[in-house]
Amino acid sequence: MKRILIVTGGGDCPGLNAVIRAVVKRASQEKDWEVLGSIQAFNGVLWEPTEIKVLTPEVVKGIHFQGGTIIETTNKGGPFAWPVKNPDGTWGAVDRSDEMIRKIQYMGIDAVINIGGDGSQRISQMLFEKGLPVIGVPKTIDNDLSSTDSTFGFQTAVEIATEAVDKLVTTAASHNRVFVVEVMGRYAGWIALNAAVAGGAEVCLIPEFPYDINLVKEKLEARFTRGRGFAVVVASEGARNKNGEMVYEKNDEVGYENLKLGGIGRQLIRELKEAGFQPDMRETVLGHLQRGGVPIAYDRVLSAQFGVKAFEMAMKGDFGKMVSYRHPYFVSVPLKDAILKPNFVTLDNALVKTATGLGISLGIDLNNP
Amino acid sequence: MKRILIVTGGGDCPGLNAVIRAVVKRASQEKDWEVLGSIQAFNGVLWEPTEIKVLTPEVVKGIHFQGGTIIETTNKGGPFAWPVKNPDGTWGAVDRSDEMIRKIQYMGIDAVINIGGDGSQRISQMLFEKGLPVIGVPKTIDNDLSSTDSTFGFQTAVEIATEAVDKLVTTAASHNRVFVVEVMGRYAGWIALNAAVAGGAEVCLIPEFPYDINLVKEKLEARFTRGRGFAVVVASEGARNKNGEMVYEKNDEVGYENLKLGGIGRQLIRELKEAGFQPDMRETVLGHLQRGGVPIAYDRVLSAQFGVKAFEMAMKGDFGKMVSYRHPYFVSVPLKDAILKPNFVTLDNALVKTATGLGISLGIDLNNP
Amino acid sequence: MKRILIVTGGGDCPGLNAVIRAVVKRASQEKDWEVLGSIQAFNGVLWEPTEIKVLTPEVVKGIHFQGGTIIETTNKGGPFAWPVKNPDGTWGAVDRSDEMIRKIQYMGIDAVINIGGDGSQRISQMLFEKGLPVIGVPKTIDNDLSSTDSTFGFQTAVEIATEAVDKLVTTAASHNRVFVVEVMGRYAGWIALNAAVAGGAEVCLIPEFPYDINLVKEKLEARFTRGRGFAVVVASEGARNKNGEMVYEKNDEVGYENLKLGGIGRQLIRELKEAGFQPDMRETVLGHLQRGGVPIAYDRVLSAQFGVKAFEMAMKGDFGKMVSYRHPYFVSVPLKDAILKPNFVTLDNALVKTATGLGISLGIDLNNP
Amino acid sequence: MKRILIVTGGGDCPGLNAVIRAVVKRASQEKDWEVLGSIQAFNGVLWEPTEIKVLTPEVVKGIHFQGGTIIETTNKGGPFAWPVKNPDGTWGAVDRSDEMIRKIQYMGIDAVINIGGDGSQRISQMLFEKGLPVIGVPKTIDNDLSSTDSTFGFQTAVEIATEAVDKLVTTAASHNRVFVVEVMGRYAGWIALNAAVAGGAEVCLIPEFPYDINLVKEKLEARFTRGRGFAVVVASEGARNKNGEMVYEKNDEVGYENLKLGGIGRQLIRELKEAGFQPDMRETVLGHLQRGGVPIAYDRVLSAQFGVKAFEMAMKGDFGKMVSYRHPYFVSVPLKDAILKPNFVTLDNALVKTATGLGISLGIDLNNP
Repeated sequence: MKRILIVTGGGDCPGLNAVIRAVVKRASQEKDWEVLGSIQAFNGVLWEPTEIKVLTPEVVKGIHFQGGTIIETTNKGGPFAWPVKNPDGTWGAVDRSDEMIRKIQYMGIDAVINIGGDGSQRISQMLFEKGLPVIGVPKTIDNDLSSTDSTFGFQTAVEIATEAVDKLVTTAASHNRVFVVEVMGRYAGWIALNAAVAGGAEVCLIPEFPYDINLVKEKLEARFTRGRGFAVVVASEGARNKNGEMVYEKNDEVGYENLKLGGIGRQLIRELKEAGFQPDMRETVLGHLQRGGVPIAYDRVLSAQFGVKAFEMAMKGDFGKMVSYRHPYFVSVPLKDAILKPNFVTLDNALVKTATGLGISLGIDLNNP
Repeated sequence: MKRILIVTGGGDCPGLNAVIRAVVKRASQEKDWEVLGSIQAFNGVLWEPTEIKVLTPEVVKGIHFQGGTIIETTNKGGPFAWPVKNPDGTWGAVDRSDEMIRKIQYMGIDAVINIGGDGSQRISQMLFEKGLPVIGVPKTIDNDLSSTDSTFGFQTAVEIATEAVDKLVTTAASHNRVFVVEVMGRYAGWIALNAAVAGGAEVCLIPEFPYDINLVKEKLEARFTRGRGFAVVVASEGARNKNGEMVYEKNDEVGYENLKLGGIGRQLIRELKEAGFQPDMRETVLGHLQRGGVPIAYDRVLSAQFGVKAFEMAMKGDFGKMVSYRHPYFVSVPLKDAILKPNFVTLDNALVKTATGLGISLGIDLNNP
Repeated sequence: MKRILIVTGGGDCPGLNAVIRAVVKRASQEKDWEVLGSIQAFNGVLWEPTEIKVLTPEVVKGIHFQGGTIIETTNKGGPFAWPVKNPDGTWGAVDRSDEMIRKIQYMGIDAVINIGGDGSQRISQMLFEKGLPVIGVPKTIDNDLSSTDSTFGFQTAVEIATEAVDKLVTTAASHNRVFVVEVMGRYAGWIALNAAVAGGAEVCLIPEFPYDINLVKEKLEARFTRGRGFAVVVASEGARNKNGEMVYEKNDEVGYENLKLGGIGRQLIRELKEAGFQPDMRETVLGHLQRGGVPIAYDRVLSAQFGVKAFEMAMKGDFGKMVSYRHPYFVSVPLKDAILKPNFVTLDNALVKTATGLGISLGIDLNNP
Repeated sequence: MKRILIVTGGGDCPGLNAVIRAVVKRASQEKDWEVLGSIQAFNGVLWEPTEIKVLTPEVVKGIHFQGGTIIETTNKGGPFAWPVKNPDGTWGAVDRSDEMIRKIQYMGIDAVINIGGDGSQRISQMLFEKGLPVIGVPKTIDNDLSSTDSTFGFQTAVEIATEAVDKLVTTAASHNRVFVVEVMGRYAGWIALNAAVAGGAEVCLIPEFPYDINLVKEKLEARFTRGRGFAVVVASEGARNKNGEMVYEKNDEVGYENLKLGGIGRQLIRELKEAGFQPDMRETVLGHLQRGGVPIAYDRVLSAQFGVKAFEMAMKGDFGKMVSYRHPYFVSVPLKDAILKPNFVTLDNALVKTATGLGISLGIDLNNP
């Protein structure tokens, strides 16, 4: 009997379950393979008692249709920074990676499939260097990895953001308002840019291009005649203005202490008012709505491809690598290369040209960016 | 040639366009009827020059499928409180109702169909008392009218809120979190209650039942075992605690001056933290997403019924009345009665019993409410 | 310990699982109640060995979101007509009702909740007369029961049919075609009528009003000018022409032997061609797409109301009754009355007036029906 | 003033309007460009009087959200085969291409953008060879072009087919049935293969791999135990069995004369029955539902990219070329190369491996295909 251990880490993303199901279904085509899942990334292995779920075809039945991950995920803990309480009551962190690798070996695991983002794959690489047979599956809803042509979850997020723009257009037009929609994207503006093009927004603000509030105002004013008109602005949560000001209230950490902060929507509305823009403005924060729910078919197919490829890498012993889509192939790339270069929006990107070609303002002077 | 003037006032609501289309399509079955629309409620009549749109079957083609209102809407102005600048620079309001009625008569209007909420129908009644041949069509996304069994837009809002709960459930479960979803409903909790039952929430907080934070906490804690578990709370924007504290940040007026306020989601998260509740919590504000977009079939049918009935009342000269649905009939009720009594959630309502029967906590002690 | 046995019979319907979940969740609020489900209506009881599923809150978790029924359904077998092979090889049927009642008593069942249509409730009544403590929950996707204001599944079917009309409108217009959409409804035209009004169809044919092909042709021809134009026809599967001809190929029984038959769509296209109608025509059969999938919020709420009410009737011992919705109450009505009168579309129904008021042709002469 | 003429030909496809809008919006960013549309492909030019629509930004407002094409489409007529009635009453065809080119020149057209499939691009090439400044935009819902990485409409069709599979799974499971879903794809099985993987089907039959009914039966039987079980089969309309039998009733031409034919669903059900397969089986034909309706965001973005690129080719005078997507670039390829090679599913395709890796049967023996 050969054993695979799957873990999912970082923010959840539509398609995670479809990857898990694909690994399990693929494994069930072979003799003598068993798939296990560690609860909450590697924490399930580290906890006492361990929390490990046996993933049979019965267990994964129908989960490709579900958002989230049935083996849960987390941003906390992990083998290299396990939280411990210091004698003085403060919290510190210890490295439990050696212990964890021993535990995994003791469990008779032949391959570990780590589905996660940037941070998770760094951990994959570190564990691989210590001898763990790890295979990475990239997970980034923001599409900010240059080592793969596309990642699951992104198109579902774009679809959800676009449907939100569709809804806001009619209410904006009925009330002669400007709507600012905050979408995901702390460092990369792909969701915003795609949703702006797909939904027909007038302005799109992304982290890569710090905006000039006067250009935004100009564009919006051109949409109004004697108080009538409307517009939709799509803004990445990480968008910032030319002075580098970014309120960047992480929706993830909205809480008690952050109550006086506002997101990019509020920042923009405040700046526009200060600049003398008159029409009514409203903000909408999509937040976690972009993560949840049924993945679209595109992402389910991509997830299935990733999952099957990951299993086949496990069979071949192709460790220390990450699954990658290089159209039209699914290949494996070394983990250490995979995490090097992020994928940001650049001025010469085709979609930037298309967006501006449609008359969408990016809040920048294209002739003098 | 007989003429109908349609106006739409107040917040937009899925189905408004379907009502307009139904009036126009119905009128086109009769000889010699023409339908006009005043832009932005009655303001289109009052402006100089007037803004009146001729509504032919061609113009309304396909609009039942669209959110919003093609003749726009507003909460500002109106015949009884037209804004004027005082000599000292402040703003006041004047009564232009007589002038407006004359203008409408001069336009050769035989009937006015006023599609709007509470406030709009009060204006309908006042104009009717002054001699204008008005017919009201009720519009309230909150379902808070007792003079009709149901109103268009409400079920679409419930559907959108329920789909949001569906999405948040999977991300909540994956991250072992509590999500608080703020839905519409300043005074009436119908959207929250329906979405909580339909989506399978654990807690539902509504304006009618001020909540006890300790009961909310108790319910949520029962969902967690050793830090694992999840829950979804659906809360009306107007929900308040037992001390009557309600942050009630109207999403409509988010702006500059209100930046330090938070909505019910933040209030609840703060109160739960103060009460010692440990798990991660996040909030989501649906806001205008509930107003926009394609109405569901139920609302399109109801809108068509309202529109056709309104036209038939116009043909018969049945003025000073409002269209009402009394299952299975569409009837007309005097405007002055229609606006008397709101429709609030009460403890003996069947849906309250169903919600609590499913184990949903309303944050109150049912034995001692 | 008190025990409830749930059975689901007849064609599946969005909301069945939500009823089951509501019964189970409601029961779990009380001490000492247990819920069981018999697989494939009463067959699970009759089989050797029996197939009974224990329905705990864990088992029903999240099923309100799923179409179908987790305890399966069937149109075959049942206590009064159990199939047996005769000595000569033909099939006959025997009455096993007494035996089944004994088995149910032996299982310690205190109440049986039978969720099903017309046929199922007749069986409920017969079993009740023989002493079984039965409670009926009405299930008809066609909305053809007069003993309740509404039933779950119907609005989901209307929504799916309407979305299909929405999709076909754009392709019809692009190709200058007529589309005929066959929707469910063998004897009652409610789904067709609602979808036609909601989707903006031009013609709606239902079983209650046998159509005159010349009137249909006239209406459609008026939509075309020099070969350009388009139209959508919504037709119930049970629609028939004035001569009573109805191909009525039950989609349920498409098979080998029926290959030469066609549904109402094909019949209509053939009749229109024979009558000399020129434009391109296409048919679409929605079939089982209307049964499957996620119920809309309206139906989930209605299902929850039905399920909770059914449990409360069980607690009170209110047997031989069916749950019924009489706006705004959920009541119980004697089973023997409940199955008496079907709910058909009549000429004086408000929705018929609305449909014709919108210019939708029903294929009949309203002045001389 | 420079003028572009847009034409759309062949079957409609979600995203056509988004391409048109992108060309118009892009043109409006330049001085002195005007966009016209010929109604029903080139027929609008050939008719007397011509039917040409001026496409301003106002006219294309919001159409990216709509299915179909606002300038209509057709499979009939065209410059090289214009139908004429022979003296004997039969129909023939004449070449009107020279006349048409003159008419287009006379209209002052500087560039023609022809959005269409295989056949349309052949016409583009022929017209280009005769001197018309043509630019092609590929349109194939079936994804069967090798000269571009992807085409708009395909992912929307996959999404619709997948949602249908999702719906049928629950009804199949509730009734212990096999459902056969016929999806588009006469020669290429991409839609079927993607929907089968995304929806979790058990069997997928495509034109490229003639199926062995015994292998299909074997796979399905393995899904049933003592009569209980279920399965979903996704089949391309053009799927055929090993003997080359393909009923291939084109849904497009359902009519009078074809009534005795059945599609692939019926063929398969008949073959399975003849082979002795026992469980209940049903078929569903998605047909035109796959063409209509709102394009998903992915297709709207792709359409926008194609439209903007096409306009830029027009500006540069890059004629006789077709827009093509070569990830991550949008390039132009000579029309004569573009139409050479179709894109069929092959055994070594990654998606085929993924499908079989998930346990989906393709009805063939992979070891001996």
